[in-house]
Parts: sequence; structure tokens; C-alpha cells
Amino acid sequence: MNNKNTQAHELLKEHRESIDRLDAILIYTLGERFKQTQMVGKLKAEYSLPPADPAREEIQIARLGKLAEDANLNPEFAEKFLKFIIKEVIQNHNKHQS
Amino acid sequence: MNNKNTQAHELLKEHRESIDRLDAILIYTLGERFKQTQMVGKLKAEYSLPPADPAREEIQIARLGKLAEDANLNPEFAEKFLKFIIKEVIQNHNKHQS
Repeated sequence: MNNKNTQAHELLKEHRESIDRLDAILIYTLGERFKQTQMVGKLKAEYSLPPADPAREEIQIARLGKLAEDANLNPEFAEKFLKFIIKEVIQNHNKHQS
Repeated sequence: MNNKNTQAHELLKEHRESIDRLDAILIYTLGERFKQTQMVGKLKAEYSLPPADPAREEIQIARLGKLAEDANLNPEFAEKFLKFIIKEVIQNHNKHQS
């Protein structure tokens, strides 16, 4: 039982190391994504385009739903995730336009 | 002005293509992350360990804050993001244990 517990903790440690590496990918990718949306925000402000774009959002949600299925990720979570990110992006755009 | 508008729309299109590629990275990385946490969940269920681990979460938040700074990402957003993911993970763990 003690051996089994040690083994479990070693497995847990290995999974957590993978999770930490994946989190680094996520953070850096988000950094790049916000850089891109910041540039979009500046363009929109310069050309007085509205910060939100519901048509584009619908296309993104449909596309991510498909990608999520391929990646074995719950599509409902993928949609929640995209909306979470877009909310932040729009807040940042509003800051630029005000 | 019309030329300038066309140029703006082309720039917008290029940024959006980058954003779509970054979203694919995010979705696949999240798919792998949930795969890892699912395995952690199974381990925890098998060894009757609690689904949440506040000490681990604190370390993760501190680490992500540092990574976010390096990636030029708002550290407050990084923390919100991690909590959003962890909330989903704990809901999934609870499903496994019940």
C-alpha cells in the first residue's frame, strides 16, 4: 500500500509537470493572441469600426466547436473559453476607443 | 480613403488569420491539458485524494504570474484564466468521484 502510494505520487508529479509545460504554452500563446487583437483594436479605433463583431464571433464559435471535437475537448467548454477571451478583448478595445 | 480602407481590411484579415491559428493551438493544448487533468482525476479518485489542492493552486498562480509577465500578458488576466480552467477541472473531478 505504501509502495502503491509512492507510485501514485510519482505519477501525479509527472502529470503535473506536463500540465505546467502546457500552461506555459497557453500563456505564451495567449500573449501572442492579445498582441494580435491589440493591433486589431488599434485598426478598429483608427477606422471607427465597432469593437464587437457578432458575425465574426459566430464563425469563430462554429470553427472552434469543430476544432474542439477533433481535439477531444468538450465543445461547450471551447465556446465558454472563446467567450471568456473575447470578453477580455472587447474590454481592451473599449479602453482603446475611449 | 477608399484605398486606405481596403488596406485596413487586408490588415484586419491577416491579423484574424493569425488569431485563428493561435486559437487552434489553444484548443489543442487545452485538449491535452484536460487529458492530463483527467488522468490526475482518476488517480485522485483511486487514492481518495481531495479534488481541489489549494497549495498546488497557489504555486501555479505564482508561476503563471511570472510567465505572464515574461509573455507580456496581463498577470491579472493570467490568474483569472487559470481559475477559469481549474473550475472546469474540479467540476470534472467531482463527476469522477461521485
